[in-house]
Amino acid sequence: MGSTSPNTTRKPIRCKAAIGRKAGEPLVIEEIEVAPPKAYEVRIKILCTSLCHTDITVWKREAPIGVYPTIFGHEAIGVVESVGDYVEEVKEGDRVVPSFLANCNECIDCKSEKSNMCTKFPFRAGAGMPRDGTSRFIDSNGDVVHHFLSVSSFVEYTVVDIAHVVKISTEIALDKACLLSCGVSTGLGAAWKVADVQKDSTVAIFGLGAVGLMVAEGARLRGASKIIGVDMNPEKFKIGKKFGVTDFINPKDCSEKPINEVIKEMTNGGADICFECIGLASVMNDAFTSCRWGWGKTIIIGVEMHGAPLSVSPYELLWGKSITGSFFGGIKPKTDIPLLAKRYIDKELDWDKVITHEVGFQDINKAFDLLIQGKSLRCIIWMNK
Amino acid sequence: MGSTSPNTTRKPIRCKAAIGRKAGEPLVIEEIEVAPPKAYEVRIKILCTSLCHTDITVWKREAPIGVYPTIFGHEAIGVVESVGDYVEEVKEGDRVVPSFLANCNECIDCKSEKSNMCTKFPFRAGAGMPRDGTSRFIDSNGDVVHHFLSVSSFVEYTVVDIAHVVKISTEIALDKACLLSCGVSTGLGAAWKVADVQKDSTVAIFGLGAVGLMVAEGARLRGASKIIGVDMNPEKFKIGKKFGVTDFINPKDCSEKPINEVIKEMTNGGADICFECIGLASVMNDAFTSCRWGWGKTIIIGVEMHGAPLSVSPYELLWGKSITGSFFGGIKPKTDIPLLAKRYIDKELDWDKVITHEVGFQDINKAFDLLIQGKSLRCIIWMNK
Repeated sequence: MGSTSPNTTRKPIRCKAAIGRKAGEPLVIEEIEVAPPKAYEVRIKILCTSLCHTDITVWKREAPIGVYPTIFGHEAIGVVESVGDYVEEVKEGDRVVPSFLANCNECIDCKSEKSNMCTKFPFRAGAGMPRDGTSRFIDSNGDVVHHFLSVSSFVEYTVVDIAHVVKISTEIALDKACLLSCGVSTGLGAAWKVADVQKDSTVAIFGLGAVGLMVAEGARLRGASKIIGVDMNPEKFKIGKKFGVTDFINPKDCSEKPINEVIKEMTNGGADICFECIGLASVMNDAFTSCRWGWGKTIIIGVEMHGAPLSVSPYELLWGKSITGSFFGGIKPKTDIPLLAKRYIDKELDWDKVITHEVGFQDINKAFDLLIQGKSLRCIIWMNK
Repeated sequence: MGSTSPNTTRKPIRCKAAIGRKAGEPLVIEEIEVAPPKAYEVRIKILCTSLCHTDITVWKREAPIGVYPTIFGHEAIGVVESVGDYVEEVKEGDRVVPSFLANCNECIDCKSEKSNMCTKFPFRAGAGMPRDGTSRFIDSNGDVVHHFLSVSSFVEYTVVDIAHVVKISTEIALDKACLLSCGVSTGLGAAWKVADVQKDSTVAIFGLGAVGLMVAEGARLRGASKIIGVDMNPEKFKIGKKFGVTDFINPKDCSEKPINEVIKEMTNGGADICFECIGLASVMNDAFTSCRWGWGKTIIIGVEMHGAPLSVSPYELLWGKSITGSFFGGIKPKTDIPLLAKRYIDKELDWDKVITHEVGFQDINKAFDLLIQGKSLRCIIWMNK
């Protein structure tokens, strides 16, 4: 295993990676070689990482969605091991979280308050580094291992473009900060920045995973009067209550009437805001039809897992409804992640209860099992255990 | 023909109506009997009316969309002939425009700034009066003739619920005020209230009918930097220029690349706001894909004419796009129509150029021909000619 000593700077590091070699098959821990960072790149020693449904969604898919072999993982925290030329924003030893969404701070989108979709480095799922498209990972056979979401955190050392690196305070615990990389920010951002939940709003959340629960937490903190959680797993209501969920619907219990009718009855005509946090076009439509006329908003957070189109009635849209996509909760990584960390440090909010499990890196496949089975919200994967 | 003399009050009036007897067939001018207004109703002597695409969309359709026989028409202006019990807001002799959208000013939606979808009297296409569902029209055979959109203006006298009646200044010319009933308000409202077009925005408008052109006018007045008009009729560019359209695309000329690519090239990545003013699901999708990532808004104004669903890529939504329905441009009839009239009277804006033709009531079918052939924007139909 490599170290953070200056000896490694500008040299390749040999270290362990959990490699996805085939769609849907357990990751394999192997020794790989991680190249030194090129210009504008940062090599990060990962301290802990966690597993998000997006990793699973892609890991289940064959090419061209999944590109193998690859190193998955995009929720993480680490320490800068070394930096490439022209990197001035962070230096060796800095605590950082990687972000799958770039934030160049130069393009029209980064400069606008309205967008978090960096135009200079548009979002891309894989497979190489943002600037030159090549990989920094080579396996023991000398073959290329691909990057994932510009992060690839299931490895002891990774290389990330500076546009995807956010410096973060050391005052926030590693496991809590790790979740700012994706899940926590996505949920809070969707409730606050995209939906702008107001006091006394009625909210319905489809899918009570970590993201959906953080949407609930965000809605609770904004004073929503009713927060309806929708999930097939009956255990989720108990967990949901801790995040502010006031009412629960299990779609399995809705055989007599469609779920949108159940929600309309509970909210006197439809929820003010519905969040889809699963990634199924049919559920997106349920969310849309469950919103009220006049001002009902549907916020799409889930990444559609089968590539299906979203189909809605244009008439229902006309009655004053809207549909808005929420990518990373509208969060601008370099400004908003440190702000969320500060609010945690200042004890204004916490997301400790999202962390339900932890494993050592060797047991990373257990984290997959737990999430797939709906047993975990977030399982922290510690690299040094 | 009836008169406004007090003699008619509380009595039926015999007068002429242009009746739609079969889907898609010319209207037939017949004498009918118009019952006196019941409680909360107003009998209006129509002074002029005009034809909107929504009339045509429904007139083309068989039941259950089209209900025959019916009196179409919903853009109009008139004078109050008499009022039913409990009507205090208007009195005999007042100048009024009917509105197909109710505005009770009591329900949660009417009281909210966010909605124009009155909950007490939800929008309904037909066929009777809002409160009791019955008709006030009887033909010479004694058979019921149905109402349309709670207005039915292709008749010398109509009966409209007070929730659908807006008192208007006599300082604005009849033909100009008539258009506030629907088309002009719908277009300006979509640009100002729903889309909230900002200075230097890039805008694409699909469909340069009266509504689309008023969207352009609204965008021009807000300082949009580029206003792209999309229409199959090449004549529309010349007309469009008068309303601020800066660029024109005829989809017929886009055989080499999809229209969204053409618009992306013209706008450096996609328009800030796209408006669909036709009512075709496929065009709604074109509008959606022509918007930019990050903050691209699609505003749906057209009423889908074949009942087709709107199908979009959930991925594209995720990249920061939104879709919003704009019904009557978000206009709250009783507050916003008088405001628009005032701005006209104060010469802050005008829509005189929307009026391209005028006919007498006897020639109402000419108005249909002109609009269907794309020759007119609005044809004023004068009742006394």
